[in-house]
Amino acid sequence: MAKIDIIQLAKVLNLSKSTVSRAFRDSSDINPKTKERILKVAKELNYQPNHYASNLREQKSKTIAVVLPELANNYFTQIIQGVEKEAKKQGYHILIFVTDDDISKEREFIRSLANGRVDGVIMSASGESTDHSYLEQINYEHLPIVLFDRIYDDIDLPKIVTDDYHSSFTATEHLIKNGCQRIAYLVINKELSIGKTRMQGYEDALKKYKIPLRKRLVVDCSNSYDENSEIIETAIRKQEPDGILASVERLAFSTYYVCRRMGLKIPQDLKVIAFSSLEIAGLLHPPLSVVRQPAVQIGEKAAATLLKQLSGDALSENEKYVIMQSDLVVRNSTQG
Amino acid sequence: MAKIDIIQLAKVLNLSKSTVSRAFRDSSDINPKTKERILKVAKELNYQPNHYASNLREQKSKTIAVVLPELANNYFTQIIQGVEKEAKKQGYHILIFVTDDDISKEREFIRSLANGRVDGVIMSASGESTDHSYLEQINYEHLPIVLFDRIYDDIDLPKIVTDDYHSSFTATEHLIKNGCQRIAYLVINKELSIGKTRMQGYEDALKKYKIPLRKRLVVDCSNSYDENSEIIETAIRKQEPDGILASVERLAFSTYYVCRRMGLKIPQDLKVIAFSSLEIAGLLHPPLSVVRQPAVQIGEKAAATLLKQLSGDALSENEKYVIMQSDLVVRNSTQG
Repeated sequence: MAKIDIIQLAKVLNLSKSTVSRAFRDSSDINPKTKERILKVAKELNYQPNHYASNLREQKSKTIAVVLPELANNYFTQIIQGVEKEAKKQGYHILIFVTDDDISKEREFIRSLANGRVDGVIMSASGESTDHSYLEQINYEHLPIVLFDRIYDDIDLPKIVTDDYHSSFTATEHLIKNGCQRIAYLVINKELSIGKTRMQGYEDALKKYKIPLRKRLVVDCSNSYDENSEIIETAIRKQEPDGILASVERLAFSTYYVCRRMGLKIPQDLKVIAFSSLEIAGLLHPPLSVVRQPAVQIGEKAAATLLKQLSGDALSENEKYVIMQSDLVVRNSTQG
Repeated sequence: MAKIDIIQLAKVLNLSKSTVSRAFRDSSDINPKTKERILKVAKELNYQPNHYASNLREQKSKTIAVVLPELANNYFTQIIQGVEKEAKKQGYHILIFVTDDDISKEREFIRSLANGRVDGVIMSASGESTDHSYLEQINYEHLPIVLFDRIYDDIDLPKIVTDDYHSSFTATEHLIKNGCQRIAYLVINKELSIGKTRMQGYEDALKKYKIPLRKRLVVDCSNSYDENSEIIETAIRKQEPDGILASVERLAFSTYYVCRRMGLKIPQDLKVIAFSSLEIAGLLHPPLSVVRQPAVQIGEKAAATLLKQLSGDALSENEKYVIMQSDLVVRNSTQG
């Protein structure tokens, strides 16, 4: 049987909405006979007080949204694997949404979820804008959100991140210890929190070894493969780096192709290390040294954090900000 | 205002359900005054006759489900990219479901979609069973389904496939022309339509060159990385193949790792070619020859085929069975 709302019930009873409402509030400000009549008809017509709340309780979509800036990145597909694995255990499905790094798409999508299409959201933010105040208008009790990887620092939501500062410090130090003095940092969208954090690790490692920071060695790349090839080739020609730290794996792949085209040898002419979770990094020529992010586990953790909230449990302070450890995996691409 | 159903309306009016029903069927078998009263109250209470049908028309979920046997395969993540790209153009979202190659999960999921959660389905079948008659019980008018890649031959649904027979014939012929005489065919789940088709191409190429088919060179692998390493190593030791055709890219990656462990050189000791859509196959050591499937385009095509049906247009016969072309990309792993 369908559910009717309070307006319809009032109409059937020929009473005002507020009178009907009082019958369900244990208000003394109502005639007992009227109250009895209201409750009887309400029962007959299957009226549920607190309709919205009970809807929320009963009509769970059992779906969580995974919002990603892009799919063409092995890291994010592994995230999906992790989320899917954890969500399935608890009978949840996943709805994928790709923002293409466009905050207006992100905003529009998150807003469209307020209608109960999903029970919660796991999101890696698009990096385009610094204005993400739209998130503050979301009722997190009705739509819990967990951020991962590309987070918004100023938004009070549970966050799952990796130890990016430490990782890029260690990766840069590794290049320096293997003889690099002119280390280029390849980044997409410097303004992203994650780009900044990794940048800081890079800068501090240079500082520790008294290597001056050269702004031109910080190379802002794009989302287009062709553009990146050009940007990286130009940077190699003009800045002559002897080491490269790629903040995203596909910038390392572009570097490999550019080196091949230019006749440069990795690691002899140029050492390369990248943030990557690619399983076959060790099969590349030469095998690629990486900061390996535990992508599948991050996905699992993000899902577990969201599902805990959906089950009605509160998160502890520790659970609200989780830092996952990356590994430095040294292979041939950075060897002496 | 909520919608009420015919039972509630009949209760309010103190009439039988069939009397109320007659008022909406232009039946002459009803007192005109009664009919007038029914229609008046129905309007007041926002009763909609044909509630289910109007729901279907109005409340499109604007979501399509993408059902995949697994995610740990570059091919399927590129399929998702293609579907997402095409779906987004028309304002559709995608719900991902992974069957883990388990037909009972596939069946349960597809059945659960009948409630209108999604408007249509794009599916690559799990290969476990030969009984997929559950699909015949789905009303394709309410839930159109498009199959791709791993299809069910006996089910009458639109299908998007690649020219697998031709591709594996050509790949096998390529190995033979490069001197291979003992070519192993690595497959996961021989019983799948796709495994069979590729197998036929392999067999026919051997036949053309009068090379006997050795059953032991057809190696049935698993979904576990560790098991595959063992299976492939054993096959190499015992059957001593000089060429390998991998029906799935990760079997080629396992072969690379196994060869490294065994001290075998690719291509000198063993030539390797694989079905793959990995963009960085050319960066492997040695660069991997592949049958490159147009995975992103297959995803786009599958989405376009489904969306055409959702917009109410009929598919032409050509659109019901689309064969996409793969390319043979020759690299070092099969040379000399």
